[in-house]
Amino acid sequence: MSTTLSARFSAVRQHTLKLAAPLSAEDQCVQSMPDASPTKWHLAHTSWFFENVVLLPYLPGYQVFDDSFAYLFNSYYEALGPRHPRPQRGLLTRPALSQVLAFREHVNAAMQQLLSKASHLPTEASALIELGLNHEQQHQELLLTDALHLLSCNPLLPAYDATFHAHPAHQDPLQWLSVHEGLQTVGRSMDDAAFAFDNESPSHQRYVQGFQIANRLVNCGEYLAFIQDGGYDNADLWLSEGRALVVQHGWQCPVYWLAPHDPRAPSDDWQVFGLKGVQALDPQAPVCHVSFYEACAFAQWAGARLPTEFEWEVAARLSGMHDLHGQAWQWTRSAYEPYPGFVPATGTVREYNGKFMVGQQVLRGSSLATPVQHSRDTYRNFFPPSARWQFTGLRLAKDF
Amino acid sequence: MSTTLSARFSAVRQHTLKLAAPLSAEDQCVQSMPDASPTKWHLAHTSWFFENVVLLPYLPGYQVFDDSFAYLFNSYYEALGPRHPRPQRGLLTRPALSQVLAFREHVNAAMQQLLSKASHLPTEASALIELGLNHEQQHQELLLTDALHLLSCNPLLPAYDATFHAHPAHQDPLQWLSVHEGLQTVGRSMDDAAFAFDNESPSHQRYVQGFQIANRLVNCGEYLAFIQDGGYDNADLWLSEGRALVVQHGWQCPVYWLAPHDPRAPSDDWQVFGLKGVQALDPQAPVCHVSFYEACAFAQWAGARLPTEFEWEVAARLSGMHDLHGQAWQWTRSAYEPYPGFVPATGTVREYNGKFMVGQQVLRGSSLATPVQHSRDTYRNFFPPSARWQFTGLRLAKDF
Amino acid sequence: MSTTLSARFSAVRQHTLKLAAPLSAEDQCVQSMPDASPTKWHLAHTSWFFENVVLLPYLPGYQVFDDSFAYLFNSYYEALGPRHPRPQRGLLTRPALSQVLAFREHVNAAMQQLLSKASHLPTEASALIELGLNHEQQHQELLLTDALHLLSCNPLLPAYDATFHAHPAHQDPLQWLSVHEGLQTVGRSMDDAAFAFDNESPSHQRYVQGFQIANRLVNCGEYLAFIQDGGYDNADLWLSEGRALVVQHGWQCPVYWLAPHDPRAPSDDWQVFGLKGVQALDPQAPVCHVSFYEACAFAQWAGARLPTEFEWEVAARLSGMHDLHGQAWQWTRSAYEPYPGFVPATGTVREYNGKFMVGQQVLRGSSLATPVQHSRDTYRNFFPPSARWQFTGLRLAKDF
Amino acid sequence: MSTTLSARFSAVRQHTLKLAAPLSAEDQCVQSMPDASPTKWHLAHTSWFFENVVLLPYLPGYQVFDDSFAYLFNSYYEALGPRHPRPQRGLLTRPALSQVLAFREHVNAAMQQLLSKASHLPTEASALIELGLNHEQQHQELLLTDALHLLSCNPLLPAYDATFHAHPAHQDPLQWLSVHEGLQTVGRSMDDAAFAFDNESPSHQRYVQGFQIANRLVNCGEYLAFIQDGGYDNADLWLSEGRALVVQHGWQCPVYWLAPHDPRAPSDDWQVFGLKGVQALDPQAPVCHVSFYEACAFAQWAGARLPTEFEWEVAARLSGMHDLHGQAWQWTRSAYEPYPGFVPATGTVREYNGKFMVGQQVLRGSSLATPVQHSRDTYRNFFPPSARWQFTGLRLAKDF
Repeated sequence: MSTTLSARFSAVRQHTLKLAAPLSAEDQCVQSMPDASPTKWHLAHTSWFFENVVLLPYLPGYQVFDDSFAYLFNSYYEALGPRHPRPQRGLLTRPALSQVLAFREHVNAAMQQLLSKASHLPTEASALIELGLNHEQQHQELLLTDALHLLSCNPLLPAYDATFHAHPAHQDPLQWLSVHEGLQTVGRSMDDAAFAFDNESPSHQRYVQGFQIANRLVNCGEYLAFIQDGGYDNADLWLSEGRALVVQHGWQCPVYWLAPHDPRAPSDDWQVFGLKGVQALDPQAPVCHVSFYEACAFAQWAGARLPTEFEWEVAARLSGMHDLHGQAWQWTRSAYEPYPGFVPATGTVREYNGKFMVGQQVLRGSSLATPVQHSRDTYRNFFPPSARWQFTGLRLAKDF
Repeated sequence: MSTTLSARFSAVRQHTLKLAAPLSAEDQCVQSMPDASPTKWHLAHTSWFFENVVLLPYLPGYQVFDDSFAYLFNSYYEALGPRHPRPQRGLLTRPALSQVLAFREHVNAAMQQLLSKASHLPTEASALIELGLNHEQQHQELLLTDALHLLSCNPLLPAYDATFHAHPAHQDPLQWLSVHEGLQTVGRSMDDAAFAFDNESPSHQRYVQGFQIANRLVNCGEYLAFIQDGGYDNADLWLSEGRALVVQHGWQCPVYWLAPHDPRAPSDDWQVFGLKGVQALDPQAPVCHVSFYEACAFAQWAGARLPTEFEWEVAARLSGMHDLHGQAWQWTRSAYEPYPGFVPATGTVREYNGKFMVGQQVLRGSSLATPVQHSRDTYRNFFPPSARWQFTGLRLAKDF
Repeated sequence: MSTTLSARFSAVRQHTLKLAAPLSAEDQCVQSMPDASPTKWHLAHTSWFFENVVLLPYLPGYQVFDDSFAYLFNSYYEALGPRHPRPQRGLLTRPALSQVLAFREHVNAAMQQLLSKASHLPTEASALIELGLNHEQQHQELLLTDALHLLSCNPLLPAYDATFHAHPAHQDPLQWLSVHEGLQTVGRSMDDAAFAFDNESPSHQRYVQGFQIANRLVNCGEYLAFIQDGGYDNADLWLSEGRALVVQHGWQCPVYWLAPHDPRAPSDDWQVFGLKGVQALDPQAPVCHVSFYEACAFAQWAGARLPTEFEWEVAARLSGMHDLHGQAWQWTRSAYEPYPGFVPATGTVREYNGKFMVGQQVLRGSSLATPVQHSRDTYRNFFPPSARWQFTGLRLAKDF
Repeated sequence: MSTTLSARFSAVRQHTLKLAAPLSAEDQCVQSMPDASPTKWHLAHTSWFFENVVLLPYLPGYQVFDDSFAYLFNSYYEALGPRHPRPQRGLLTRPALSQVLAFREHVNAAMQQLLSKASHLPTEASALIELGLNHEQQHQELLLTDALHLLSCNPLLPAYDATFHAHPAHQDPLQWLSVHEGLQTVGRSMDDAAFAFDNESPSHQRYVQGFQIANRLVNCGEYLAFIQDGGYDNADLWLSEGRALVVQHGWQCPVYWLAPHDPRAPSDDWQVFGLKGVQALDPQAPVCHVSFYEACAFAQWAGARLPTEFEWEVAARLSGMHDLHGQAWQWTRSAYEPYPGFVPATGTVREYNGKFMVGQQVLRGSSLATPVQHSRDTYRNFFPPSARWQFTGLRLAKDF
């Protein structure tokens, strides 16, 4: 198993670099908004995690790469000391990207040294390494998300990677699948040996009223019909705060859509900016980069609603469900709250999940930007309802 | 029954004026922050509701009091036309308070005319009148809440009413009551003839894990111990956004507490500003005017947690529960979401509740400012987690 | 002379109350923006000045009316202790208007007691009383200015006083008057016994290049032509910051003009809101309530420029100059700077003028809201270039 | 002369690259605040100037390097079309630095082609080239200014160039030089063939009252005494807006000074961050990076004042004046206004200076960051009074 962990460590760490490869040092340095982080910061912070959470406690004699990095690359761990303010991550032109890459090498080497003695590793060290790898996979997705946002702020709308491959989505007409009323078990059992985040547990029972759920995601063609029917201007469809955002920011379509004749990429038709650059709108592709408010308004317009996160998890067990993973995170009608009996992880990583459990909505599934081995049906992603820069779409549900 | 409704209408409307009586025309005109409304606005808006929702549709030949009031005193009903911006309600020095009082008289007279024929009233009209009275009762509490906030902004800290009467709270040592795991029915049955808001329905089943709950509210003495133990400066106790607010605004106690030696009312001891003015801190009185974040941090410090709204509702049926009502609204660990199968009210009042169902926390019970006939165990109050100017306190719960 | 000062004191103080008379207690309490103050505050602050600057130092045994007023009604005198924050003046619903009026009576009585012994008054006390009266006259204009702004924020656009009388302006075609190059004496001699503010002195020599100046103010008809010629949208006419304000706030006319079909007072024609309420635009009336930026843009459009404050003062001595006073303050192309050899007043009033000498433009003349005995050709009014709520217009100048 | 212009063009353009050399591509891309621009933007914008103002009008057949650059690298020329918003210059990770350098080469080659036929160049083309070179020299200073600000935002406080050479300042005790009252000629004659900006003309007469002026700049030792005497906390010394900034931002020293024990570079003594990195405070070095407000407060504390820009210019002709140039820009007590008879340059460059003539203070002299051939005694630099990131210091003056 230690060989496995060592190999897995290498694979995950290399994959991060592969994702950064299409981006120049300039691209990797700039922060496009306070919510987004520079690629270089993601590269450094994921290494900071291993240095501070694994190497310093568990590798005797480990030498930190640079004393200042503890401060520069802490994200939000109050227990690990003060930290550079989040909105100023983009001001760190030094350390240079080359130094951050050297930091990664340094950490990798020390980690391989530690992993070579894996049979002697305490259980909690292994658990923290596994957590670190899952943490890095989360940042792999954020790296793409944040890079796309940065590129979207450039009037040239440059492609991240014109050859970026995404699996096609399910394209058949929508079907409604049914789940009947009754007690259901949801959440991750704490006895399950495989990795899961603390927020997925404990496994517990929910009483779920009967419902219907769509077998695929809402696609761009359907969403365009909503736009063309005046959906953004129909106050009746919107939650109050969503309506306020529509008015304040002039929202008229998903954040990366280009209306016909947009001066940045003139065309007679709708287009969508994404990792491959500007592309013609594909009516069959899942709609992406919508906020929770837009998802709710669309559902209202369609005579449906969003599923709760428990409905989603129960429905994921049905046959005939498509695109649970790998297309777009799916907003649910569930606020992000602790499960009954939730106990945060202990030690330095106790701040990992629990302290964010208010004011956010749960998303289920995973997206085209999620690393392949990082998806689970019990996975609980969460973002504020106004967030649009994540790879977020929706799946419809309705009552009987 | 129509006599009853008529008498009830008079009583509720008169009570509003009684609450406004200690306030001068100046006090009733000013808006202390965008979230709060002037007393005069509350007086007008509650009358606007009857004029637009009841009188215009149901009283043939009704003459509106003033054409401009439809615009001036609409709160948030998009379906009823444009409205004066909320943060500018305090700029309306005209119409004068005397004109708003005349408006109330005008509406009252027309309503009594309508109610005198109550036996001929369509059912939906009666329902809307009942809704209007409950709506006015909500504004009765807001009137006190907003007036207290205004007075708190004045360095003189004037009393709203030095003789304001509040029932004493339960003072015995805290006891933990137990509820065992199992299916529970919560929410208001739609077959129940008595009034309830749409958000309390439908009645439905919840599977509730076993829990313990305190028989009374957290009091000021307990909360002072939390403060004196450094609770506000211990990041470990706080949700991330709560911690950010503590740092940003320098929170060190509930919003209306005065630390010893506050220049506005010098004393060697802690004091609390309230409707009666500045009073010595009463250790036995329930703590009030805390945000959800403060409530959670206190609970964390106390080795407990907040109950969910469903736990609260189930526990309300236990014997030995004190101060469910009439002291302070009780923050719950439940986000404000639609119940399964929730259907908003129809017609012009469809915007009453449903469109606010995101980003807010549910509060249960009622406060010293809640009108006596306006409390129910199924009642769902809701405010953003940062709100402190409401009469909000907490009750502890914990797992077995 | 002491009888004169006593009578003058009474007259000025009574005039302030006369100006407040058309306003209700509600009108007098509210603050419409941080730059404007409530009428009640003006009433109190002008009395605060006499209490703190005159009575406490010079009337033995004087009893302050209320200890808290020193804090509540200080404007900006750091030397006189801390003060209530300016943007929160509108939150002071207490003390009530009636109490502030009693405060005025108390101060008036004490002042008359002091003035009755005026022959024994030290010179500096007399000077401070005279300063206090001129200070009060400044606030008389501000009272009208701020009240007009408040009423303009009300969608009902109520009139301050429908019978408010203003002198008609000069209506003949514009004529250019000439001044030839040479040394000129400007500013107020410090030997002049009559009152003037410290910022008008010392008298000194300026070399003035030859120039031409208009014999009257720019009127509304001329300004409307500028609007209709696209003046607000022609970037070439504007200073850079003015252009930014036009774009940011959507300026398309002076702040109190109503374009045809404004929903607040529907009409097919342009209208102007003022102290008399909404009136048809009078093409012959001087344009008023324009910022320095608008004044400059208009002048640029007209092939002219604004005069410097020294050109204005020199030209004021010419025969044939109309409307130097009593119509609208006239923006000049002079920043507000100390005169050569300027020495601020001493004592508590040293903060009166000097500390504002940066970032503001000088205005000369006086307006329809200026008290009649409060105008001088050497008077230097000053406001930030973006200010529009003052009674501000312009007079053109040009080079030979 | 054409050879001269060609050689001068090469020299100026190469010097810009030399200044950028110590900075990485990452350093050159990031924007540290809206007022500052990235180095890459300076490199591109100065080339944009030649392409749009010189090459397109005067070099037949010139091919623009990239169509998008007209939009991306326009600064504020409304007449030359829309432009990328200033606060978003740092988001332009593309075009890459390498492309901007290629753009410079492209423009340089075309310019040399044009300059090779310089004998045929129309006069206005030569004038625009000369303007372009002076424009580039201004950006050379801004490049250093903005780079220093960026590096100052990094907690590592990296040096721009540890070997950066600055001339030592005059170190003798301060002496007061006198100028007697009388008419003086100031400003640049429009007959002068050498280059000057439009805002320096016309030459005109000023009547200057007699004054004294210091023969050298205020130094760090003197400024430290002001700090240690409580200068930042003494409201009496400050202009009102300056006082507000001190309170709001907690100013306690010049922006790049490090108080003893600053965690970024621990020391028992005061240190100063500059182009060479963190250095011990040199009491003899001119104080730099102070705002106009700080300069005025220091002067007030010292019993002196700032000179007007005209006093400065007249005094520059005295023998015994030191450090007029090459140390720090010197704040004057003159707002930036048009000279009598000022006529802006014509054509596309008419927006160069005139439209900024409000709300700013004039600075005279030049700084250690000013290119050596870019200083004149008639030069009028200008910045808002709150600006601190420029190389700005002060020289004292006083009345007789």
